[in-house]
Amino acid sequence: MTRTAPFPVTLASDFGSPYPAAMRGVIRRRTDAEVIDVSHDLPRGDPRAAAFWLRFVLPEFPPAVHCAVVDPGVGTDRAALAVRAGAHVVVAPDNGLALPPARALAGEETRRATGRGGDDVDVYRIDGFDPASSTFHGRDVFAPAAADVREAIAASVVEGTTGGTREVSEALQDLAWLTRVDDYADARLPEPTVRDVDGGSAPVAVEGEVVVVDDFGNVITTVPGEYVRGRDRVRVNGESVPVGETFADVPAGDPLVTTGSHGYAECDVNDGRGADAFGLSPGQRVEFRFG
Amino acid sequence: MTRTAPFPVTLASDFGSPYPAAMRGVIRRRTDAEVIDVSHDLPRGDPRAAAFWLRFVLPEFPPAVHCAVVDPGVGTDRAALAVRAGAHVVVAPDNGLALPPARALAGEETRRATGRGGDDVDVYRIDGFDPASSTFHGRDVFAPAAADVREAIAASVVEGTTGGTREVSEALQDLAWLTRVDDYADARLPEPTVRDVDGGSAPVAVEGEVVVVDDFGNVITTVPGEYVRGRDRVRVNGESVPVGETFADVPAGDPLVTTGSHGYAECDVNDGRGADAFGLSPGQRVEFRFG
Amino acid sequence: MTRTAPFPVTLASDFGSPYPAAMRGVIRRRTDAEVIDVSHDLPRGDPRAAAFWLRFVLPEFPPAVHCAVVDPGVGTDRAALAVRAGAHVVVAPDNGLALPPARALAGEETRRATGRGGDDVDVYRIDGFDPASSTFHGRDVFAPAAADVREAIAASVVEGTTGGTREVSEALQDLAWLTRVDDYADARLPEPTVRDVDGGSAPVAVEGEVVVVDDFGNVITTVPGEYVRGRDRVRVNGESVPVGETFADVPAGDPLVTTGSHGYAECDVNDGRGADAFGLSPGQRVEFRFG
Repeated sequence: MTRTAPFPVTLASDFGSPYPAAMRGVIRRRTDAEVIDVSHDLPRGDPRAAAFWLRFVLPEFPPAVHCAVVDPGVGTDRAALAVRAGAHVVVAPDNGLALPPARALAGEETRRATGRGGDDVDVYRIDGFDPASSTFHGRDVFAPAAADVREAIAASVVEGTTGGTREVSEALQDLAWLTRVDDYADARLPEPTVRDVDGGSAPVAVEGEVVVVDDFGNVITTVPGEYVRGRDRVRVNGESVPVGETFADVPAGDPLVTTGSHGYAECDVNDGRGADAFGLSPGQRVEFRFG
Repeated sequence: MTRTAPFPVTLASDFGSPYPAAMRGVIRRRTDAEVIDVSHDLPRGDPRAAAFWLRFVLPEFPPAVHCAVVDPGVGTDRAALAVRAGAHVVVAPDNGLALPPARALAGEETRRATGRGGDDVDVYRIDGFDPASSTFHGRDVFAPAAADVREAIAASVVEGTTGGTREVSEALQDLAWLTRVDDYADARLPEPTVRDVDGGSAPVAVEGEVVVVDDFGNVITTVPGEYVRGRDRVRVNGESVPVGETFADVPAGDPLVTTGSHGYAECDVNDGRGADAFGLSPGQRVEFRFG
Repeated sequence: MTRTAPFPVTLASDFGSPYPAAMRGVIRRRTDAEVIDVSHDLPRGDPRAAAFWLRFVLPEFPPAVHCAVVDPGVGTDRAALAVRAGAHVVVAPDNGLALPPARALAGEETRRATGRGGDDVDVYRIDGFDPASSTFHGRDVFAPAAADVREAIAASVVEGTTGGTREVSEALQDLAWLTRVDDYADARLPEPTVRDVDGGSAPVAVEGEVVVVDDFGNVITTVPGEYVRGRDRVRVNGESVPVGETFADVPAGDPLVTTGSHGYAECDVNDGRGADAFGLSPGQRVEFRFG
């Protein structure tokens, strides 16, 4: 059996269909790498929410070049970035989208190798791709840049090895159209606000916000699951709701709070849509109150 | 030209986007097998309707490991199954989803080889995957199990051969984390009720139910097409409707009954949505009355 | 690293999900070629609008067999076509869908090779695929025909070369189930109507129509971008609107006219839906008036 060539190119965007096909074509014309679609239904025009999803799913992949485009500033003078994270590279507009998944990729790779964390990344500005359009840099800049980064990495990896952080670092350093930069946008999620009473060690409430509502209608918040896990009930914006490990811990149609597979507290309904039941949508504040 | 390694992994779920990307990443990390998306818009939380679709589309594939997750009971103690069907394997939760496509896969493969039917399957329980989450066993159990089953099969197939039922059977028997079981859920579609009069041999009516409404709005029923095919008109829940071979047998906007490509009677509208015109949705009863 | 076998098969349709999975299975059973999804959300039942999208995205691909199915006449006596365009082949129903992308593929390939245009295509009728269904020729005719065309091309290409127009031409000529035809449907977009005054050389208005509304709500018209590009403002059906290079040239929520990445004038809203703001949908007339 043949082995798939390492270093696939993954594709993620908010483009829906059929625009991503143009990106697949451009990439296939420049490289034989495997092309894997991550999603083309990322939150439209919302780099921070898109970064949440990419931070969640990209670390599952083996080393790859991840081309990610959620780009409300397309055609303005915002730069294009290539961010090295371990042996991964994230190619994306300079609007904050790249950094959260890049840190997660670097941390996960370090953790797998050493058992410890670590999220060092190198950020490069991409030059030299002259876009034919002002509205589709996914096709004109990010897809060809991702393909060419991938080819540069593949060329630097000695036959029979898979290539590690060092080879990928060197491959990027050798590309004339990449320039190391220290100044770039970063779409960190806001830290939740923890409220306690009289300096007590246990929080009485944690306030965060809704990052995204997923396709099931689950409301994903910025509050880490550790604040709700193990409790019997919490009050969500004043309303008392059971805490469960999984949906089936409450009857069908009933609301619950769980810790999602991404590690954050979710407001859900078993066999229903949490967003409707809780009346919550992205950007809204959500308070979990205990005791 | 290189040949694609045999035994691709197919992926099907009701997860929408972007959760399936996490599954693709997990699989790609564990195997070089080709990964082919079947659909991630299977009927949400409805293993029986999802099984209908999988029974329809999976038999078109060459031998593969099919990872299918429609799992309203995720995080409960329902088991995970690997079902061998000919040289195919279906990896799915133990909620009925796996068996209808597995029987179809076994039957189709036997028919192709011998000209006769046959739907023997071996059902195994999957153990040994300790899920990190209670709500995303697609990522934590089913994807890695499917990848590892595929690798076990690939390792057992002699270089240059494609691998048949015997090799796949032996590969599964050798896996310590698979245990043969005789007790498992099965989501068979209900048999339609055939009504005749005074013991006459020709039915006067057949009553079934709506399984799914497809993306075109076509209403797919549990009534085999043989009951309607060749007739001029039938009454659908009392309303007389022409029977056609294809949509264009009636003017645009008009209703008709056809036999779909899956072999079942459909209630359709040419260039329109049958579900709207007939007022039918999944789970509802539908009676076809003749003469 | 292995090289991907050349001549992938691309798949495009208006089938949504999960019908395309049956086509992927059929193709994978007959060929090891890479299968790349273009889109399965092409404008439903509208070959002309679907042809617009295919003409836009397919020329980005390297030589491939493009299987495209938007087929409101499925099951009638409309033919199936294989259209050679440079070293590409488009397999599609004879309803106009194939010709616009085929001419674009031929022209782009000629332009890349010679710097000049050119859009010569050979049109063949496909016979010999006996469909099992009257409603899913995507599975029964187009997918197997595309796979078999691809295999014929692959067999004719000398090991180590990539195959060019001559090899592809010869491969198609040798297939007994293909017959050259001169009579076929062609879904050309209507030419816009240019209005001037008193024989003046500069147009005072151009009238076209809406081809498609994309997933962002951008209204794409049949009017080439050259008519609006560089202007300060235009009147769209009487309403004065700024012309921009990209969305961010106007404040969020404001309307603008741009030239899309496909080269046609679009009616858009920055961070909003042009279709809603302009009240325009596919098929409607749109007039751009200048000065």
